[in-house]
Amino acid sequence: MNSFGRNFRINVFGESHGAIMGVTLDGVPPGIDINIEDFQEDIERRKPGKKGTTPRVESDQPRFVSGVFNGKTTGAPLTMLFENSNTRSEDYAKTREYYRPGHADFVASQKFKGFEDYRGGGHFSGRLTILIVCAGVIAKKILGLPIEAKLIEIAGESDLDKGLQKGIDAKDSVGGIVECRVNQIPVGWGEPFFDSVESVLAHAMFAIPAIKGVEFGAGFGATKMFGSEHNDNIIDEKGKTDTNNAGGIVGGITNGNEIVFRVAVKPTSSIGKTQETWNHETHQIGEFSVKGRHDLCIALRVPVVVEAMTAISLLDLKMQAGR
Amino acid sequence: MNSFGRNFRINVFGESHGAIMGVTLDGVPPGIDINIEDFQEDIERRKPGKKGTTPRVESDQPRFVSGVFNGKTTGAPLTMLFENSNTRSEDYAKTREYYRPGHADFVASQKFKGFEDYRGGGHFSGRLTILIVCAGVIAKKILGLPIEAKLIEIAGESDLDKGLQKGIDAKDSVGGIVECRVNQIPVGWGEPFFDSVESVLAHAMFAIPAIKGVEFGAGFGATKMFGSEHNDNIIDEKGKTDTNNAGGIVGGITNGNEIVFRVAVKPTSSIGKTQETWNHETHQIGEFSVKGRHDLCIALRVPVVVEAMTAISLLDLKMQAGR
Amino acid sequence: MNSFGRNFRINVFGESHGAIMGVTLDGVPPGIDINIEDFQEDIERRKPGKKGTTPRVESDQPRFVSGVFNGKTTGAPLTMLFENSNTRSEDYAKTREYYRPGHADFVASQKFKGFEDYRGGGHFSGRLTILIVCAGVIAKKILGLPIEAKLIEIAGESDLDKGLQKGIDAKDSVGGIVECRVNQIPVGWGEPFFDSVESVLAHAMFAIPAIKGVEFGAGFGATKMFGSEHNDNIIDEKGKTDTNNAGGIVGGITNGNEIVFRVAVKPTSSIGKTQETWNHETHQIGEFSVKGRHDLCIALRVPVVVEAMTAISLLDLKMQAGR
Amino acid sequence: MNSFGRNFRINVFGESHGAIMGVTLDGVPPGIDINIEDFQEDIERRKPGKKGTTPRVESDQPRFVSGVFNGKTTGAPLTMLFENSNTRSEDYAKTREYYRPGHADFVASQKFKGFEDYRGGGHFSGRLTILIVCAGVIAKKILGLPIEAKLIEIAGESDLDKGLQKGIDAKDSVGGIVECRVNQIPVGWGEPFFDSVESVLAHAMFAIPAIKGVEFGAGFGATKMFGSEHNDNIIDEKGKTDTNNAGGIVGGITNGNEIVFRVAVKPTSSIGKTQETWNHETHQIGEFSVKGRHDLCIALRVPVVVEAMTAISLLDLKMQAGR
Repeated sequence: MNSFGRNFRINVFGESHGAIMGVTLDGVPPGIDINIEDFQEDIERRKPGKKGTTPRVESDQPRFVSGVFNGKTTGAPLTMLFENSNTRSEDYAKTREYYRPGHADFVASQKFKGFEDYRGGGHFSGRLTILIVCAGVIAKKILGLPIEAKLIEIAGESDLDKGLQKGIDAKDSVGGIVECRVNQIPVGWGEPFFDSVESVLAHAMFAIPAIKGVEFGAGFGATKMFGSEHNDNIIDEKGKTDTNNAGGIVGGITNGNEIVFRVAVKPTSSIGKTQETWNHETHQIGEFSVKGRHDLCIALRVPVVVEAMTAISLLDLKMQAGR
Repeated sequence: MNSFGRNFRINVFGESHGAIMGVTLDGVPPGIDINIEDFQEDIERRKPGKKGTTPRVESDQPRFVSGVFNGKTTGAPLTMLFENSNTRSEDYAKTREYYRPGHADFVASQKFKGFEDYRGGGHFSGRLTILIVCAGVIAKKILGLPIEAKLIEIAGESDLDKGLQKGIDAKDSVGGIVECRVNQIPVGWGEPFFDSVESVLAHAMFAIPAIKGVEFGAGFGATKMFGSEHNDNIIDEKGKTDTNNAGGIVGGITNGNEIVFRVAVKPTSSIGKTQETWNHETHQIGEFSVKGRHDLCIALRVPVVVEAMTAISLLDLKMQAGR
Repeated sequence: MNSFGRNFRINVFGESHGAIMGVTLDGVPPGIDINIEDFQEDIERRKPGKKGTTPRVESDQPRFVSGVFNGKTTGAPLTMLFENSNTRSEDYAKTREYYRPGHADFVASQKFKGFEDYRGGGHFSGRLTILIVCAGVIAKKILGLPIEAKLIEIAGESDLDKGLQKGIDAKDSVGGIVECRVNQIPVGWGEPFFDSVESVLAHAMFAIPAIKGVEFGAGFGATKMFGSEHNDNIIDEKGKTDTNNAGGIVGGITNGNEIVFRVAVKPTSSIGKTQETWNHETHQIGEFSVKGRHDLCIALRVPVVVEAMTAISLLDLKMQAGR
Repeated sequence: MNSFGRNFRINVFGESHGAIMGVTLDGVPPGIDINIEDFQEDIERRKPGKKGTTPRVESDQPRFVSGVFNGKTTGAPLTMLFENSNTRSEDYAKTREYYRPGHADFVASQKFKGFEDYRGGGHFSGRLTILIVCAGVIAKKILGLPIEAKLIEIAGESDLDKGLQKGIDAKDSVGGIVECRVNQIPVGWGEPFFDSVESVLAHAMFAIPAIKGVEFGAGFGATKMFGSEHNDNIIDEKGKTDTNNAGGIVGGITNGNEIVFRVAVKPTSSIGKTQETWNHETHQIGEFSVKGRHDLCIALRVPVVVEAMTAISLLDLKMQAGR
């Protein structure tokens, strides 16, 4: 279902090339200031048009149509609408004879029996992450915790320019790793079964297109450590630990230390190179290449989406813990 | 909250040293055969008492108290109860002055204001995974798909004995990686936002104690691949792909290829070695060591739990897709 | 929370005098025809401007902005937007010193700490029932069952004109009773605990503004019957009963007979007469009268809303039963 | 599904003649005192064996098996188990050729395809209300508000003895009306759409076996009142009203006045009289009479169940409001 959260809930709707996309937030406390300026920074961070990203310039301004009155939230469902413009459907028209490799075209066609809006990925499009980002701005404001996600690796290189250059040289797309850190988090958020903090954050992260892995603290690296190394010893009354291999979460519950996790972003599926895939009109494998605009490295645009999903998830966990 | 699933829902209750633990399944179709023999194999796979695991021999026989009549499920909520015996609370009594490193002792104490049942980890104990395993046996039976999870790495070694020996030599605990594969999966399960197959499976996996990472298909490895390598080309009408870097899931939806994912299991937190951690009676760091029974490598017992959670998650996704 | 339903879910947003109201439907199957003409009849039935209703003429045309492609549903969330126009806020401005008796003004102010959009009832306005009605058109189409609700009593009179005349003569508002019948319903929808058909339908009915009672079959009348009278004897293999005092629901489950229930609609709260109520500026009781447009008998417009809520509820129960 | 509540959630399991029934509460705050004595009064109020009720003497003592430690709640899921004894299945055996009129036998058989535990009504049995009652004791304790439900009418008579005598004289069963009142309720609980206080309470009430109607405040009587009569004028700063026709709920939200509602309880379905109903072995209508023990007036035992459901519902609404 297209909603997430128990007490702070987000609902998204819209398609890449539809008239209007939107997001409704339920559970927003009344009295939160809403200024369009507060959204600009995060909208900019997600925007294409920078090195390594698609030149499509989108109309990314949210229009507040409910839940805001006299510049403040009312406590009623808050809806932001976004108009889609600059959509060049002709770029996508001819892809109908091919299901693009790495994209949801095939599964969408099967799941929705051919009735799906296939233009530009439809409801599966990364375009919808603008909804998440703007919802995240509001969640961050309510939550009031320092959340920072950044790209720490591209194409296996911690020197991001070097990693990006690999893709440019190969005329191919590349992936990367985004790391997110949250500070000043109280002890006690999360539930042992089944809503551990890791469960809820991972649930949200894997809803972001292109994410294929999530790890907390030492993560997969923990599997190579001894218990005596991995255990974080408590060194004060408030539960501060000397190391943070747990990534701030023990037994599924926040332990008051920094939350740290990383997500794996696959290389952009749309590439300029010719690919061989099934042509479902000729019923044989054929050559196919993507003509449309696309990102060399979608991971460049992911950090702000990760932050938003983190804020949305943690806010719901906070409300749950504070009941 | 201590339940999981929309249409097939699991609820767990109980504590490591409480009188009775149990699990209730809601949404079980009527007419499914329930024989106690069907549970033995998976119960055995989870059991301690093998090399590298704790010698505590548990009473792991489920007692069916509701939802089963004349050997078949009725469609009403199905509850299995498990009696706890052989619980040596004295092993745990003295840990109250220390919050065991790597365990939930500290967070539980904070979250539940000191009222938690701390004996043996209480509600956070890995002991509760017997509930998941037995629920999984039923979910597997209803689902009818081949699901196989196995340990593919211990302490960084794909030769498992070699990895285990590392721990034995160091008198320390070790972790590992479990891989799970599901075959014959239909196309079209999962939802784009926010219940992608990855989201739901990861949510379930991170509810298993000791899991700190989850990756699908090429996972974190995908971040080092070019798009042209990572994209799985479709090679027939039914969506079969030449490679399976996506792990059988595209756009959050099953694509009919094998589902493949891996989970990272941290080294067991309870170790024989002396550790330095906060003593909350003397209010200073002190030396602490675990006297109780514990696993050298908890990862050895995790595969059957991963299979169970996978079956539970996929069954709910199937019911969702088939509505 | 502002959503309803497990597998077929409706989310509403908007305020009486806000720019745009909307409704998102999740769980809509793909391939359903959507023609604007299909909505006209139910929109007309709800419209004000008839005898006994407010003369405000609303812009009630839904704009489909997501989930519809080439005239058919896609399976993605379907959103309809409605623009508010002809909103005369000046009518409402002066009510701020009084909390209108019978209205949500006071509770909204308390619950939302004074930040609520109070214009015309804001998010509490009966205006939002247009969202329900249009969602209901789609639910009816998917469900495909004959659902009919009609007003059977106004002001205690089964002769509706006579009941309405009572209000006209008294220059006061009047209430009424709406009865809803659903035919061709299969056996077996609903759950014993806690989602009985009565539970789910009543939940939905009491979300309609002005509803203060719900009864099924013989309802409150059943309390005056003997068991031998009330019991519906089964007279054929398919479960047809000779009487239908149960209203088609036994043990919370549909029994295949006609579903029958009635809802009590209170008299319209806004009346032309002067009322004495608290003035929260002068801090004493004062005289207050409503200048704005209002319905003599809101019950006249309720049947189509009851039908819509019934369709929405039953569709969700059907999806639940058919899993 | 067999659970109810968002933040305070109740799950029930078991059958009338099964080995063990139980109830799990999720969301219980830690530190609440649990003494078995606290349960006795409400258990007694629900007990059969009084005038007008069945002589079956049940074993109604809850056994606390999880979520309680050292006499206090821990915050983990709290489970109470109840053993069934004194179950005379032979009373019920012969009813299999008839689906008892007024009972769920037929619908259960259809819904669960003949696999249901039909003994004594199985999962549909009123026996399960002991689970609700004991859960209600805990909810009441957490909520801390005065809740009182009482029978105000039997067989249409406000003189209860006179109403009961009607049934005795006619050798038939009778129904009644239960009224519930809650005081000291704060302003602001409930949500406009779709979780109005009426919606949530009615949802819970209609999950109680034999309830066929629910009305708030003036209820169905409101349909005969003018708006000027029905409107409750506010007479002080805190929202106290002169009348209480709204039953303490306006716009779906508590207004701080007494919550008042009534439920209609149908006459007991099991009667001694011979009834004519379908025999699904001979495939024709035949004569049938119930030999088992049964209540003359089940409504006598309903008030404590209504109180319990009220406490459970309001506690969840409180947690929702207080997020």
